[in-house]
Amino acid sequence: MKRVTIICESILEERVIELLREIGAHGHTAFTVRGGGHQGERYADITETANVQIDIILKPSMAEQLLHRLQRDFFAAYAMVAYESDVRVLRPDKF
Amino acid sequence: MKRVTIICESILEERVIELLREIGAHGHTAFTVRGGGHQGERYADITETANVQIDIILKPSMAEQLLHRLQRDFFAAYAMVAYESDVRVLRPDKF
Amino acid sequence: MKRVTIICESILEERVIELLREIGAHGHTAFTVRGGGHQGERYADITETANVQIDIILKPSMAEQLLHRLQRDFFAAYAMVAYESDVRVLRPDKF
Repeated sequence: MKRVTIICESILEERVIELLREIGAHGHTAFTVRGGGHQGERYADITETANVQIDIILKPSMAEQLLHRLQRDFFAAYAMVAYESDVRVLRPDKF
Repeated sequence: MKRVTIICESILEERVIELLREIGAHGHTAFTVRGGGHQGERYADITETANVQIDIILKPSMAEQLLHRLQRDFFAAYAMVAYESDVRVLRPDKF
Repeated sequence: MKRVTIICESILEERVIELLREIGAHGHTAFTVRGGGHQGERYADITETANVQIDIILKPSMAEQLLHRLQRDFFAAYAMVAYESDVRVLRPDKF
């Protein structure tokens, strides 16, 4: 299974969760983070306050679909960081 | 080393930490998360507010033991998500 | 790419971020966690309140450099936990 982590401005949280519903992801967690960046890189575009981290557990194929949609629908217009890692989930059939 | 992540209702935090003590895990972090689920799946059972994420760094054998105990003692009765991932820890002898 | 996670007392947050700037890391997130430890192990040195988790996405060579500096500059004097994991980042060229 995959864990996809998204870091973005808080105002995007609802739109990301709407995307999760659309692709059929079965759950997520979200929490507020402080964040900053340096040297004008992408990460730096995210303002110092009111960012959110959203974590989603999902099947590899669905993770692929989520990352594709994030890239297509959000990355051009918004400050956003997204990454994926491997996790072993108890009772993965629930996701 | 392994990182085990547990997401559950906040009222279970103390009981999970008691379990960590019981199996000899040497530390944890906990923080409040928002979370939601869809379509009646397990993740969805967790209410929208007052959830907690607990992360624990521990040896693979101890992670296995923790996941077994979570499954046995919590999963039947409570809304809980648990997963494990590989991490490389500075000075792992401390855990 | 690597994700380095640092857990330390909140009073060290600014110094860690200064180190990130120094080695050229392009962004981080930080958030407050509760944490505790048992049995006098390292993790236990971190007080129950006012800890912070700092996550940084960076290239493997830079992660190595960061872990080295944490070990050299912080581990002897402060309660700190640090670990690294593998992540697949959307548009890793930004980091």
